[in-house]
Amino acid sequence: MATVASAVEEVCGRAKRAASALARADSERRNAALTEIAAGLIARCEEILQANAQDMQAGREAGLSAALLDRLALDEDRVRAIADAALTIVSLPDPVGEVIEGRRLANGLDVRKVRVPLGVVAVVYEARPNVTIDAAALCLKSGNAIVLRGSSSAAHSNAALAQVAADGVAAAGLPASSVGLLAGGGRGELAELATQSATVDLIIPRGGEGLKAALQEVATVPVIYAASGNCHVYVDAFADLDDAEAIVINAKTQRPGVCNAAETLLVHEAVAEAFIPRIVSGLIAAGVQLRVDERTRALVGGQIDSLRPASEEDWATEYLALTLAVGLVDSTEEAIEHIARYGSGHSEAIVTRDTVAARAFQRGVDAACVYVNASTRFTDGGEMGMGAEIGNSTQKLHARGPIGLRELCTFKYLIEGDGHTRG
Amino acid sequence: MATVASAVEEVCGRAKRAASALARADSERRNAALTEIAAGLIARCEEILQANAQDMQAGREAGLSAALLDRLALDEDRVRAIADAALTIVSLPDPVGEVIEGRRLANGLDVRKVRVPLGVVAVVYEARPNVTIDAAALCLKSGNAIVLRGSSSAAHSNAALAQVAADGVAAAGLPASSVGLLAGGGRGELAELATQSATVDLIIPRGGEGLKAALQEVATVPVIYAASGNCHVYVDAFADLDDAEAIVINAKTQRPGVCNAAETLLVHEAVAEAFIPRIVSGLIAAGVQLRVDERTRALVGGQIDSLRPASEEDWATEYLALTLAVGLVDSTEEAIEHIARYGSGHSEAIVTRDTVAARAFQRGVDAACVYVNASTRFTDGGEMGMGAEIGNSTQKLHARGPIGLRELCTFKYLIEGDGHTRG
Repeated sequence: MATVASAVEEVCGRAKRAASALARADSERRNAALTEIAAGLIARCEEILQANAQDMQAGREAGLSAALLDRLALDEDRVRAIADAALTIVSLPDPVGEVIEGRRLANGLDVRKVRVPLGVVAVVYEARPNVTIDAAALCLKSGNAIVLRGSSSAAHSNAALAQVAADGVAAAGLPASSVGLLAGGGRGELAELATQSATVDLIIPRGGEGLKAALQEVATVPVIYAASGNCHVYVDAFADLDDAEAIVINAKTQRPGVCNAAETLLVHEAVAEAFIPRIVSGLIAAGVQLRVDERTRALVGGQIDSLRPASEEDWATEYLALTLAVGLVDSTEEAIEHIARYGSGHSEAIVTRDTVAARAFQRGVDAACVYVNASTRFTDGGEMGMGAEIGNSTQKLHARGPIGLRELCTFKYLIEGDGHTRG
Repeated sequence: MATVASAVEEVCGRAKRAASALARADSERRNAALTEIAAGLIARCEEILQANAQDMQAGREAGLSAALLDRLALDEDRVRAIADAALTIVSLPDPVGEVIEGRRLANGLDVRKVRVPLGVVAVVYEARPNVTIDAAALCLKSGNAIVLRGSSSAAHSNAALAQVAADGVAAAGLPASSVGLLAGGGRGELAELATQSATVDLIIPRGGEGLKAALQEVATVPVIYAASGNCHVYVDAFADLDDAEAIVINAKTQRPGVCNAAETLLVHEAVAEAFIPRIVSGLIAAGVQLRVDERTRALVGGQIDSLRPASEEDWATEYLALTLAVGLVDSTEEAIEHIARYGSGHSEAIVTRDTVAARAFQRGVDAACVYVNASTRFTDGGEMGMGAEIGNSTQKLHARGPIGLRELCTFKYLIEGDGHTRG
């Protein structure tokens, strides 16, 4: 235990010292680090693939599922895609030094609120080795040092990638310890990391509910949970039903395994007769399993294999699969109440032509992203014009929605006077 | 224990339900609540003073210090001042509904990032009963319900004030349970409050280190600590020494018991010979006790009662009293390093005419407020043009510096399309 503790402390301490140099580094130098990293990935692709082959071999021996092995696997194309993603981040505007607001006070003091890096950001993630570079690139671009803690199943891949990142940073004249990698050594290491409040400013976990619960129990460092999404589409009495069908199908099926996919469809009873049979066949044709309330079932009738009664649990479930709960409501107000009760505050959509319903929904629904006549699938930093993201937050403090470059920053007030004293 | 738990849960649950009505209430109605509260304070002053007399009587019997009794005491003037403070908050701009930023995306989607209330804010505070109304007014203005948890020594005063607040809210047509008051029943109650993550969105503790430690141990609800300030004034080689003297005296003595008062003076060795004797006599004349390093002592010489050697602990101490640590540094860089080591990230000042030193200090010091040629005493929402504040944060996430109306809010993205789906 003592050696785990000291290794974590050492990596975080070195990252903290590096953070001070990063915070003072100009945009050009931080971008140069990213460009070096991208070049290093291409130049050292062979080395990375060899490391990955070791992880794949171990994974197969350990009996990892085909899905997990696919998430773990790298090839030349995937490494190139990782390098391209880093270069895309180079082209994003620098958040550091942005003047968020400013004013001259009545007494002549000039106040500016200026964006600055957080310091040290730790990212805890599971299988996918590409996160190693994606997360490092976002943190370095925003002037932060990063401590990476991947899973042991990707240990060789992550080590090779983190080494390329550290070398790239060094090649740009910044401290190599700006990129720290932990061994991936189980829950003891995680607890150690979660309590490094003297050196680590933020932890972002990317993983399942088990990881979140483990962190919540022990963390003294602030954590922003890249959270799950139990997202709804509500088809209002005044919906354009063509739009509604397109949005429901898109929100459910375009990529069902992600947090901004829809998990429940609510339909106003006034359009249920026209819409339910149509959307049910559309969804079933797209391979979606349905969990429906009694009134929905009555409108479809007959015995359909893909249709089962919705239980209380269904309304609360994030399926992350081709499954959708479907229910009727009698008003926009009832839809809002259903979402307040079961939603996770991620992404919620209304389909309507009625401005009154649209405004009521946008004001009444308490979520990171509230859509009118658009698919929930747009909740994504890239799609929303914020650049790349490191996750999506359903918390209300600091970052809500996509966690991009600005959200990886804090700010400080710079105040200038001519010998001002307070009277 | 079961009864404590259910009482806390009940108050927080009712506040959560009220929050939904508050979030939808227009600015006019929320302002009307504050106006009603101010009127109620004046109309029911006698009732409030009677409740306060009970607390004062109990306090005297319990042997509270004169200072604590003074903090606890209300009279007609103090009640009027509390009412006036609430009316001042009416006149501040409404943070709710502010469009923070917005854009039209390439695909025609319109995105707006809009400020919205957090929901339920809990404020945990010690003796001063005025906090009951100040905190309630700030939370109601920003569309939040509030749960108040004062100290048992002010129980009668707080109950009377919270009742006036709840009645004022009801008179404005909003739920009275928007203002909840806990009994002030010890650490069990505090722990209960700190784990109401289903209903409470934020806890703001206003109190000493013991309170913070108690919360940090158990809280699952996010906490913003209204933190302590170990603030520095650094007098650079190119300082105007008249400005330097005025700023040091102001930052130390104008109100020594508050978090933005200076606790350490650092002087560049190049001006030490000219500045140290002068500032030492100025400070001693103002009744300040000094803790000095060896080089400072050598410049003053002789035996002065108010001068003692500074220990390692002195550099780290927030005196909150007429005591100041004084040390020499050989460069701006050394001053920045000293502040990084001992500072609490609150308010830091450089006095200099040199633009290079000023820029280096503002970029290099990691604190909420970094001053050039001004006293640290300006770190205050009112002074900084942000309106009233509920405390000062030295955290880096969400709120840094004064916690005003905007900081009591979160935001959501409102996204509007014409049937947009993701390709």
